[in-house]
Amino acid sequence: MTHWSLIYETFDPKEESLREALCTLGNGCFATRGAAEESQADEIHYPGTYLAGGYNRLDSCIAGRTITNEDLVNFPNWLLLKFRPEDGDWFNLMAVDIITYRQELDLKKGLLKRLVRFRDHNQREFTVESRRFVHMANQNLAAIEYSITAENWSGRIIVRSALDGSVINAGVARYRELNSTHLETLSLCEGSGPDIVCLLTRTNQSHIHFAEAARTRIYKGEQQFEPERKTYKEEAIIGQELSFELEQGKTITVEKIVSIYSSRDRAISEPSLEARYTLQQCERFSDLLVSHESAWKYLWRKSDVVMKPSDSNQMIVRLHIFHLLQSVSPNTVGLDSGVPARGFHGEGYRGHIFWDELFIFPFYTYRLPHITRSLLLYRYRRLNMARHLASAEGYKGAMYPWQSGSNGREETQIVHLNPRSGTWGPDYSRYQRHVNIAIVYNAWQYYMLTGDQEFMALYGAEMILEIARFLANITHYNKTTQRYEIIGVMGPDEYHEKYPDEEAPGLRNNAYTNVMTVWVLERALELLGQLSLENQRELKEKLSLHAEELEHWRNITHKMTVPFHENGIISQFEGYENLQEFDWEYYRGKYGDIKRLDRILKAEGDNCDRYKVSKQADVLMLFYLLPPKELRSIFQQLGYEFDDDMVKRNTDYYLARTSHGSTLSRVVHASVLDRIDRTEAWEMFCAALKNDLLDVQGPTPEGIHLGAMAGTVDIVLRHYGGIDTSEEIIAFHPRLPETLHGLHFRLRFRNYWFELDINKQTFTLIVEADGMDSVVANVNGTLHKLIPGEPHEFPLKA
Amino acid sequence: MTHWSLIYETFDPKEESLREALCTLGNGCFATRGAAEESQADEIHYPGTYLAGGYNRLDSCIAGRTITNEDLVNFPNWLLLKFRPEDGDWFNLMAVDIITYRQELDLKKGLLKRLVRFRDHNQREFTVESRRFVHMANQNLAAIEYSITAENWSGRIIVRSALDGSVINAGVARYRELNSTHLETLSLCEGSGPDIVCLLTRTNQSHIHFAEAARTRIYKGEQQFEPERKTYKEEAIIGQELSFELEQGKTITVEKIVSIYSSRDRAISEPSLEARYTLQQCERFSDLLVSHESAWKYLWRKSDVVMKPSDSNQMIVRLHIFHLLQSVSPNTVGLDSGVPARGFHGEGYRGHIFWDELFIFPFYTYRLPHITRSLLLYRYRRLNMARHLASAEGYKGAMYPWQSGSNGREETQIVHLNPRSGTWGPDYSRYQRHVNIAIVYNAWQYYMLTGDQEFMALYGAEMILEIARFLANITHYNKTTQRYEIIGVMGPDEYHEKYPDEEAPGLRNNAYTNVMTVWVLERALELLGQLSLENQRELKEKLSLHAEELEHWRNITHKMTVPFHENGIISQFEGYENLQEFDWEYYRGKYGDIKRLDRILKAEGDNCDRYKVSKQADVLMLFYLLPPKELRSIFQQLGYEFDDDMVKRNTDYYLARTSHGSTLSRVVHASVLDRIDRTEAWEMFCAALKNDLLDVQGPTPEGIHLGAMAGTVDIVLRHYGGIDTSEEIIAFHPRLPETLHGLHFRLRFRNYWFELDINKQTFTLIVEADGMDSVVANVNGTLHKLIPGEPHEFPLKA
Repeated sequence: MTHWSLIYETFDPKEESLREALCTLGNGCFATRGAAEESQADEIHYPGTYLAGGYNRLDSCIAGRTITNEDLVNFPNWLLLKFRPEDGDWFNLMAVDIITYRQELDLKKGLLKRLVRFRDHNQREFTVESRRFVHMANQNLAAIEYSITAENWSGRIIVRSALDGSVINAGVARYRELNSTHLETLSLCEGSGPDIVCLLTRTNQSHIHFAEAARTRIYKGEQQFEPERKTYKEEAIIGQELSFELEQGKTITVEKIVSIYSSRDRAISEPSLEARYTLQQCERFSDLLVSHESAWKYLWRKSDVVMKPSDSNQMIVRLHIFHLLQSVSPNTVGLDSGVPARGFHGEGYRGHIFWDELFIFPFYTYRLPHITRSLLLYRYRRLNMARHLASAEGYKGAMYPWQSGSNGREETQIVHLNPRSGTWGPDYSRYQRHVNIAIVYNAWQYYMLTGDQEFMALYGAEMILEIARFLANITHYNKTTQRYEIIGVMGPDEYHEKYPDEEAPGLRNNAYTNVMTVWVLERALELLGQLSLENQRELKEKLSLHAEELEHWRNITHKMTVPFHENGIISQFEGYENLQEFDWEYYRGKYGDIKRLDRILKAEGDNCDRYKVSKQADVLMLFYLLPPKELRSIFQQLGYEFDDDMVKRNTDYYLARTSHGSTLSRVVHASVLDRIDRTEAWEMFCAALKNDLLDVQGPTPEGIHLGAMAGTVDIVLRHYGGIDTSEEIIAFHPRLPETLHGLHFRLRFRNYWFELDINKQTFTLIVEADGMDSVVANVNGTLHKLIPGEPHEFPLKA
Repeated sequence: MTHWSLIYETFDPKEESLREALCTLGNGCFATRGAAEESQADEIHYPGTYLAGGYNRLDSCIAGRTITNEDLVNFPNWLLLKFRPEDGDWFNLMAVDIITYRQELDLKKGLLKRLVRFRDHNQREFTVESRRFVHMANQNLAAIEYSITAENWSGRIIVRSALDGSVINAGVARYRELNSTHLETLSLCEGSGPDIVCLLTRTNQSHIHFAEAARTRIYKGEQQFEPERKTYKEEAIIGQELSFELEQGKTITVEKIVSIYSSRDRAISEPSLEARYTLQQCERFSDLLVSHESAWKYLWRKSDVVMKPSDSNQMIVRLHIFHLLQSVSPNTVGLDSGVPARGFHGEGYRGHIFWDELFIFPFYTYRLPHITRSLLLYRYRRLNMARHLASAEGYKGAMYPWQSGSNGREETQIVHLNPRSGTWGPDYSRYQRHVNIAIVYNAWQYYMLTGDQEFMALYGAEMILEIARFLANITHYNKTTQRYEIIGVMGPDEYHEKYPDEEAPGLRNNAYTNVMTVWVLERALELLGQLSLENQRELKEKLSLHAEELEHWRNITHKMTVPFHENGIISQFEGYENLQEFDWEYYRGKYGDIKRLDRILKAEGDNCDRYKVSKQADVLMLFYLLPPKELRSIFQQLGYEFDDDMVKRNTDYYLARTSHGSTLSRVVHASVLDRIDRTEAWEMFCAALKNDLLDVQGPTPEGIHLGAMAGTVDIVLRHYGGIDTSEEIIAFHPRLPETLHGLHFRLRFRNYWFELDINKQTFTLIVEADGMDSVVANVNGTLHKLIPGEPHEFPLKA
C-alpha cells in the first residue's frame, strides 16, 4: 500500500504553534508546520507538513447540519480522553520527554493513528497508541481508542473520559472579538449503563439540540475488566474517572464509543433518547472499524485517482479526495446541508455557502451524483428566499445571495475588516451575481451526467428558469450600442468593487457575468424544450412565463455586450483597459507576499480599483468552465470574433496581472494554461496542489479550501484524462502531462461506469453497462461502440 | 362543475354530537351526522352526512412531522377567530337562531366555506361567511377569512383572533385516561408588526418546536382599515382583540394569515424567526388562494378519476382522493414522514404506521411516484432499527415492527383494552410479520412503475434484501413434510392470535405470509440480478450475503408450505379446518352489529381463536395483491395445484366467514369478487365507498381510514380500468361494471403518461411521451404501438 497515509514523525514541543494543538494527545488539533519532504519509504512521510484540518475537526464533519444563521457551530467535543499515573500529572506532550512520536492519517481507512513513547519526570516510560475515527457508515457514531503500556514500572492509572460542551468558536483570530459562544449546555447526566455519560447542548440562536452519549470501557487484551469508576461533572463537562492497576510491560486499552444526534436528524424521537439507544446497540471499537473501513472502501473504489509516478502529488490528490469525502458523503444526502467554502474543517467564513460549489460539485457529479442531487436540493429549498431577495431589490426571478447560511438569506457583510490596517471599509462583494450562474452550471452538469429528467421536472427547471429570469431582468438594452448590458456587478475577481472615480458599487459589463448569462439563458430555453408537455405547461403557468419573456431571453443571447480592449483582449469589464498598470516589482520588493493586494493597497490609502490587477481568474473563468468550441459558438452568435489565439492571448494578458489572492486562482490558471503551455500548466497544477498542504495562502488554519481541492481533482479528469461530458455522448481525449506516466480512474456517465487507464502509449477504456449490448463513446474525435466489460485499447500519440 | 363539493345545509343545535364541534364557527371540527341523501342539484348535497376529518384537522395535515414516539400531536390551533357585538355574547351557533346554514367543502380548490345567517337574542341579524385553507403550494401557510354583515342593525363589533397552544389530544374517548397533553407553551409574544402575534410551543417528549405567527387585518371591500387593536394573553393563548364600527347592510372582512414552522423544517434558522419572516412577505387571502388553487389544480390533473354517471360514487371517489392528497402531497417529500393508518385526520392509533401503506402507496405510485420514493425512504431510514428488532429476537435481517412511530421502534401495545368489557387482555398483534411484505410490495411496485434503478441501487435493494433475509430466517425446514414452514405468526385477519388450546402466541403456516414470503424471496433474487455488478458486489459484501444464503432462498421458493383443507380450500393457517363453525345468525340476532366479534366474544369469556371467523381478508389478500397468473405460477412452482376455480372457491368460503371488522375488508373483497361476481363486487365496492362517509365501522371520529379510501380508488384503476403494471410492458384490459357508463383517468408508467377514456363501447388511449416515436402497450392481450399524442381507439366487447 503506497501513498495512502500522511505521516508525521518529528515533534518539537518548543514550536509555539504546536503548543495548544498538541497539549492533550488526541484531543483537538494536530496541526504541524514545516516544509514537505519526500522519503523513499513505502509510505510518504511529511515530517512537519502543515496539516490543519486533516482530521482535527472530523467531529464537525458529521455535522453539516450545525450551520446556523450566523455561524458554523462546533460540535461538543467528544474526544476528551486523558490519563495520569495516580501520583503524577495528566499526560501532556509539552511536559514530558518524547522518545518516539509518530502520527499517521490513513486516508484509505479514514483513521487517525498516533504513537507516542515518552518518559515522565519520575523516569516512568509510557507507550501510548491512539486510533480514532468518525464512522462513515453510521453518521451518528465516533470512536477513539488508547492503548497504554507501562514500559518500566507498575502502578495505578487514572483515566478521564468526558464530553465537553464548553466548545467555543475561536479558530479564527480576527473573529475572536465577536461572540464566540454558540453552544449552551442543557443537561449533563449519567446514561443508561454505568459506563455511559450523556451531554445535551443546544445552539443558542437556532436552538438545534445536540445530544451525545459516551461509553468508556477498559480491556486487557480481549478481556474487558471493570475499573474503579466515578462520574464527575464540571461546568459543561460530564465524564468518568476510571482507575486501575497497570503492570510493567502490560498494555491496557481504553475504548470510548460516542453516539451523536442532533434535533435535525431523521428517524429519531428525541436526540438524547437516540444517542443512548444507539450506544446500547454498539459493538467494540474494532467491530465498528470494520464497517467504517468498508464504507471508505466503497467510496474510494468510485473516487480514487491513481497516478504514476506514485509520488507526493499522488498523495496530495488523495488527501484532497479524502477531504472532499469527509466533508460531503452519502451521509449528507437528505440532510439539507450545503457545502461551505471551507468544508467543515475550520471556522473561516463561518460556514457560509459561496459560489465555491461551482468547483466542488463536479467531484461528486462524476462519481456519486445522488450527492449532487441532494446538494442542489439545498439550493432549491431556498428558492423562495432567493425570490424574496430579488423582489426586495426590485428584480424578477430568483437572486441567490453571495453568502448564505441556514435559511438562505443574504449573509454577506456590509463592512469588512482589513486586518492589515485594523480599519473597516465598505464591502460590495454581495454584488457578485455570478453565484447564480454557478448554481445553474452545476444543475446543468448534473443533468448532462445523469440524464435525470425527473429531477429537472420537479426541481431543477424551476430553479434554472427563475435564475434565468433574474439574470435577464438585470440585463438592459442600450440604445446607443444596440446591445444588452449588465451594470452594477462584481466579477469573480473581487479586487474591483467599483470604478475608482465613481460612488456607485459594481462595474459595467463584467465579461464573465455577461457571457455566462447568455449561456444560462440558452440552457434555460433548451431545458424548457426538453421537458414533457405536462411539465412545461405546469411550470409556465406556475411561473407566469409567457412567450414574450422567452423571446426576450432569446434576444439577449444574440445581443449581449462583451467588452474588448482595442487589442482584442476581452475586457474584464468595461473600462478595465483605462486602468493603470500596476508596479508588481515594486510591491513585491516592498511587501514580499502580495497575494492580498487589496488589503495592502487599502492600508496605504490606495485601492485595487485603480489598477489592472486581479485577485483571481475572471475573464479566464470562461475558458475554465466552457470548452473552446462552446465559447466560440457563443461569441459568434453575439457577433464577436473568436480566433484561435483567443485563449492564449487572454491567458497571457491576465495571468501577468493576477496576484493569486484566492486559492482558486491557481486551479483555474492550471486548467486554462493546459491548452497553451503544458509545462507551465503542470507547475501551476503542482502549486495548486500545495495550496493547503503548505498553507500557501496563509488561512489554512481557518479551514481548508474545498473548492481548490476539488478543482485539482477536476483538472486531472478533464485535462489529463481528457473527459468531456458537455454533450449527449461522452468524449475522451486523454493527454498526460510530461511528468505523469500513468493515470487510472473511474467515472460515471448516465447509468454507466467508465474505467480509464492511461499511459504514455495507450488509453484503455472499459465500460460497465450491464444488460447493454454496447455503449457509444467519442475517443479522440471518433465514435466507438464499446462492448461492456471488455477493455478497449486506443493508441496515443507521443 | 359537478361533484366537487360536499355541502351540508341543515343544522340542529340539539344534536349532542355537534355541540362541541360547532360551538365556534370555523373553529375545530365540523362533524355532522346523518344519512346520505342525493339531490338533483348541480352539486351533491349530503345533509347530515358524517364528515369528520373532512377538513377539521387540516391544520395537522401540514404536520406529518408532528408524530412523536407515543402520539400524534395536534398542531397549536391557529383557527381561533371569534366575534361579538360590543354589548353581546361571543357568537355561538348553539345560542342563536339559525336562519341559513350552508357548509361546503370544495374538493377541487381545497377550500372550506361556510355561510351562516342568524339572529341573536337582541333580534340582530348577522350573515357570516367564512373561507379557509391550508396552503398546498406553501406548506408553512394557512389562512382564514370571515366576512361579517350586519343585516338589520349598526354597532360596534369585537373580534378576537388568536393562536391557541392549549391543544390536547382528546379525540379518542378510550385514550382519554392516558396523558393527553403533549404540547407545552414556550412563549407568547407580539410579532414584527402591530397586527402580528406569535406562539412558540414544543412537544413535551420529542421536543419538536412549533412556531406560529398570525396576522389579522380588517377590510371594507378592498380597503384595509385599522381597528382599535389590543393584544391579550391567556394561558397558552395569545391573540388580538379588534374593535370597529359596523354599519347596517355593510360587510367587513377579517383576514387571518398564519405561518407555521416546526424545528424539523428545512431551510430554516429558528422556527419563530421563519414564521415571522414568512408572514412579512405575505400577500392577502385572495392572492394566497390563487396559488393554493393552482397547486390543487396540478394535483387533480394527475389524480382525478372521472366517472359516469356523475353520482354520489363519483363524489366519494373524489373525496377519497382529496383526503389522500391532503394527507400526503408533494409537500411530504423529504419530510421523513410516514403515512399513519388514519392519515393526519384523527388521533386513532396515535399516528402510528402499520401495514396500511400496502393499500395507500399505490395511489401515489401511479401518479406522483416521487412521493412514494420519499415514503419508502422513511422506511429505509429505519432499516437499522428493523435490524436491531430482528437481532433482539434472535433473527437475521430486518424485521419491521407492526406499529411504529418516529424512530421506527416497535410501538404495538402488549395489552389491549376491550372497550366492551372494560378489561385488558394480551395483544399479540406484533406477530404480524407481514408488514415487511407490504414494504417489499410497495418498493417493488415503485420499481416496476418507474424503472428507478438508482433508487434500488442506493436504498431499495438493501431494504428488500434485508427483509428477504429476515423472512427466510423465520422459515424452517420440516423434515417430516420435507417442506419449509413459518410458525408463530399472525395473518392479516387479526381475530386469530394463537391456537385455542395452546399458550404460545401465533399460528403455523399462515397461507398469506407463506406465499408472500415466496414472492418476496423471488423478487429479492430477481432484483439482485438486475443490479449493476458494482452494486451487487457492494451490497453482497456490505450485507455479507453469500451464495449459500441465496441458494437457501431459492430452495424456499420451491418448497414452502401452503396449508390446504381437505376440500381444496387454502387454509388460512394450519389447523383452521379443525376450528368450529361460528353461529353467525345467533350472534347477529343477539348483538346486531358484530363487526368487532373479537371484543364481543372476549367479553363473553369466549374467543375468536376457536372459530372459523375472520375480521378481514387473509387468504384472499393473495388474490387482491397478485394477478391470478402470477399466483398460479407460484403455486405450481411449490408443487400445488391451482385450478381455474381456485379464486371463486376460496372467495365463497372465506367471504361467508368474515365479519368485515376492518374497513379494509370490503375493499379487498370488492376487488376479489370482481373476478367472480361483478354485481356482488359492485355492491361491495359501493359499501366500501361509504365506509368513512357513513361511518360504517364506527371509529371515523377517530380519523378516516386512508387505506380503505386509497383501496377504492385502486379498484377503479386496476379492475374497471383494467391496468396491470406487473410486467415490463403496461397492460390494459378495461371492464366497466354494469352501473358505470364511463371512466376517465391518467396514470404514469415509466416516463409516460397514459390517458384512458373508457365507455361501454370504446376504450380510447393516449400516451404522452415527448420525443418518442412510439410506446408499446398491451391492450386486451395484444401488443400495440402507440403514437404519442394520438388517441388510439379500441372497441370493447359488450
